[in-house]
Amino acid sequence: ATASTSSQPPNVVIMLMDDMGWGDLGCNGEPNRETPNLDQMAREGLIASSMYTAAPLCSPSYTPQNMVGGIPDDEVLLPELLAQKGYTSGLVGKWHLGHQPQYLPLKHGFDFWFGAPNCHFGPYADLLTPNIPVFLNDSMVGRYYEDFHIDKNNGVSNMTQLFTDAAVEFINREANRGPFFLLWAPDATHAPTYASEKYRGTSRRGRYGEAVRELDAGVGAILDALRAHQVDNNTLVVFTSDNGAALVSKYNGGSNGPFLCGKQTTFEGGMRAPGIFWWPGVIPAGTTTHQVSSENTQPSQPYEEAVAEWCGRRWICSRTAAQLAGVQTPQDRIYDGLALAKSLTHPQLEVQRPVFLYRGNRLMAVRRGPLKIHLWTFSTPTAELQKGINFCPGAEVPNVTTPTPTNHTARPILFNVEVDPGERYPVSHLSRTYKDAIQMLKKVVKEHEEKLVPGEPQLNWCDQAVMHWRPHGCEALKECLPIPQSNPYLCDWPH
Amino acid sequence: ATASTSSQPPNVVIMLMDDMGWGDLGCNGEPNRETPNLDQMAREGLIASSMYTAAPLCSPSYTPQNMVGGIPDDEVLLPELLAQKGYTSGLVGKWHLGHQPQYLPLKHGFDFWFGAPNCHFGPYADLLTPNIPVFLNDSMVGRYYEDFHIDKNNGVSNMTQLFTDAAVEFINREANRGPFFLLWAPDATHAPTYASEKYRGTSRRGRYGEAVRELDAGVGAILDALRAHQVDNNTLVVFTSDNGAALVSKYNGGSNGPFLCGKQTTFEGGMRAPGIFWWPGVIPAGTTTHQVSSENTQPSQPYEEAVAEWCGRRWICSRTAAQLAGVQTPQDRIYDGLALAKSLTHPQLEVQRPVFLYRGNRLMAVRRGPLKIHLWTFSTPTAELQKGINFCPGAEVPNVTTPTPTNHTARPILFNVEVDPGERYPVSHLSRTYKDAIQMLKKVVKEHEEKLVPGEPQLNWCDQAVMHWRPHGCEALKECLPIPQSNPYLCDWPH
Ligand SMILES: [Ca+2]
Ligand SMILES: [Ca+2]
Repeated sequence: ATASTSSQPPNVVIMLMDDMGWGDLGCNGEPNRETPNLDQMAREGLIASSMYTAAPLCSPSYTPQNMVGGIPDDEVLLPELLAQKGYTSGLVGKWHLGHQPQYLPLKHGFDFWFGAPNCHFGPYADLLTPNIPVFLNDSMVGRYYEDFHIDKNNGVSNMTQLFTDAAVEFINREANRGPFFLLWAPDATHAPTYASEKYRGTSRRGRYGEAVRELDAGVGAILDALRAHQVDNNTLVVFTSDNGAALVSKYNGGSNGPFLCGKQTTFEGGMRAPGIFWWPGVIPAGTTTHQVSSENTQPSQPYEEAVAEWCGRRWICSRTAAQLAGVQTPQDRIYDGLALAKSLTHPQLEVQRPVFLYRGNRLMAVRRGPLKIHLWTFSTPTAELQKGINFCPGAEVPNVTTPTPTNHTARPILFNVEVDPGERYPVSHLSRTYKDAIQMLKKVVKEHEEKLVPGEPQLNWCDQAVMHWRPHGCEALKECLPIPQSNPYLCDWPH
Repeated sequence: ATASTSSQPPNVVIMLMDDMGWGDLGCNGEPNRETPNLDQMAREGLIASSMYTAAPLCSPSYTPQNMVGGIPDDEVLLPELLAQKGYTSGLVGKWHLGHQPQYLPLKHGFDFWFGAPNCHFGPYADLLTPNIPVFLNDSMVGRYYEDFHIDKNNGVSNMTQLFTDAAVEFINREANRGPFFLLWAPDATHAPTYASEKYRGTSRRGRYGEAVRELDAGVGAILDALRAHQVDNNTLVVFTSDNGAALVSKYNGGSNGPFLCGKQTTFEGGMRAPGIFWWPGVIPAGTTTHQVSSENTQPSQPYEEAVAEWCGRRWICSRTAAQLAGVQTPQDRIYDGLALAKSLTHPQLEVQRPVFLYRGNRLMAVRRGPLKIHLWTFSTPTAELQKGINFCPGAEVPNVTTPTPTNHTARPILFNVEVDPGERYPVSHLSRTYKDAIQMLKKVVKEHEEKLVPGEPQLNWCDQAVMHWRPHGCEALKECLPIPQSNPYLCDWPH
């Protein structure tokens, strides 16, 4: 079977992990090998070795509830595209594209949602700010740390189980009713990591590993549901993550394998994401693609941090999945994402194209073919280092892991990340390779910047009044809180 | 089938790579995934995640030809043990246990040898010292860079092909004639790396990757030969390496995956070896063992560098393979290696035992369970760093990657290498874990030192006269050279 000969366009399941690193999967070399379901998924499918996230973090993490902005109405998200072909779309897990009512998933193409608009941060017991709400469709059904508990002391929570059950139930409901799109975005590997009671003490990697094990079991349950309904041969399943592992969390963060640094940086450890594509009978089993690809369809967006994450959550398949579904992407804007359906069935095909790596609004680096070129470098700010915060623990590459944003535009730093995934050995600027790379760089950056239409920044304004005081549904739960006076101010993001 | 019910003891094939890193295998997370045969071998067999080499280097590499010493006659090597049960033993590849006639493989239990006594170093065109000889059994059949060419400019040599052909021919000859033991020790991944013409330009990883690809093809050819003779169900095949990848070689060295530093150091990158065990029908497919194991049977040996390597080349299976063959190991000496045959068939079994990690004569660290305790740390000597030599490029862990041998005996540094394989986050010395670890450490080091019988150092003496001037067989080839006057001197090993 292939996409073109199927009578119905394929279902699409995107499994988007949160802060899970490239190196956390057994099949990507995590030494304890605690992901049997992912490893089997990889054996039965395609490993994408060079998939990049849109930005090295999910969104500013300190005061997300204050954020005024959100996904603009004129952005066309994947579920909106797929609706043209009769897809039913569900989101299970974290949204993170804005939490005011107009930004929520059901306003942007999703037919079903179980999850939270933000990360599962507190305020825990701090009654000055509301806890993050959990939604079922357009209504709050409870709050984290109140109705949906996460034990901060031992990391026990049944949220991953709930998110897995909800995903399986969605598949049970939709499998025989026309095409569906499921975005499964559990956030158990984001600090504070959590896992169900039954996973306590089961991992050689501690609490973080427990979270990974339970997510891996969830992957298995979801694939089993597809098999049980005999739709596995007509479903593309993609497993990836939204940024590299947060090395800053030390024991409680994940692994970026052989790559340099972690979340918050544009080194490979911050940007290279695990990628597994599974579609039995269509994608050849046990294959690898080296296609350099990006999870975002970036240039119509501003490079504010949260917006880049939104690109991550809107995701790559806006082109590839649309192609598979037979939907045209909007013609009134430029997408630099590619439609890569053919790469899934023909892993040896490789389109040479650049991927642009941003930190905030700044173009930091470009990856193309085996080459990665740093225009700017920045690891951990000195002030943070002094507080014990380190995005690059144990790593120190001279002139590369710089503690201040360092401009190399006059002489970019070039790595061949196929022979040097750890970004340790800069290619000599006297070499032919270097000279050719700079020529290529100039050309692709110029094209990129010419096409780029900066969007409206969504992270500039913060306001206590937009926090989750009275989400829709709070009345029935008797969890409404008084809204303070609106007082917008310019947000201050520490990184 | 199990070992105990077979009518004939199993054949044993040990594939011992040279300077290949843990992270060079696709199944261990090398991002380019260029080892399809090893990956398949792992899928059909058992991955050993925590196997340690005897020492972080093969032997002093600068002046190996000068070395007077070699494997003492009273050491009982695996082929000598296996001979008791009628095994025929072959060595294909590098020996490295001494090159004077009395030390060569056929004097120490091997029935067949094709390979060289030393690494494939030059002197290249320097006529002051002889090139390394290649032996067939007890006679030189040519010299490297003369009869067995390695092109230093482009890294082309057919040696891996010759070593693969010789291994396959050995299997073809022995497969139906009683049990055999084959040690396949090609050294293409040791600098200067090489591969056959047909592999040029085939790897995303450059010359080093070409060597890996050809070795991987050799693995496939050897497994195919076992299958063709239908002895795969009665053959244990082990794949490993003699030390971590030589990061000092930069582009031309391999990958240690997520581990710290490389060859020459006792950090995980220097000591953790890839391990795959394959025995269809006996070893369960697709499994992992976390058993901490050591490639050497150390304490009867001095911890001179080359001698530790000899332990590596005598190897692990001296106990496990002997157990499988039903041979008793000598009772007149203490082996601290374990007989681990049961771990192969029952991967969940785990014997808690310490493994001792040495650099030269010094006990540097102890691994037991998830814990690794550094008594001493030492990365690259400052003088070498100044010359651009670096065993830990890009890595800098304060108080850990020390440029001088640093004594931590008073307060050892503790890592949990299951959660922290990169040895980045020392466990607090105020923790319960730390206190318990120190108690355990004291006990196991005391036991180790009490049992240890230091051997006769074999690396102290050097002499120009012992070089390969006139190896046996040189007359027929007309390649005999005049032997200079003997003038023994104390060797000076730079690292
Ligand atoms: Ca994230
Ligand atoms: Ca070696």
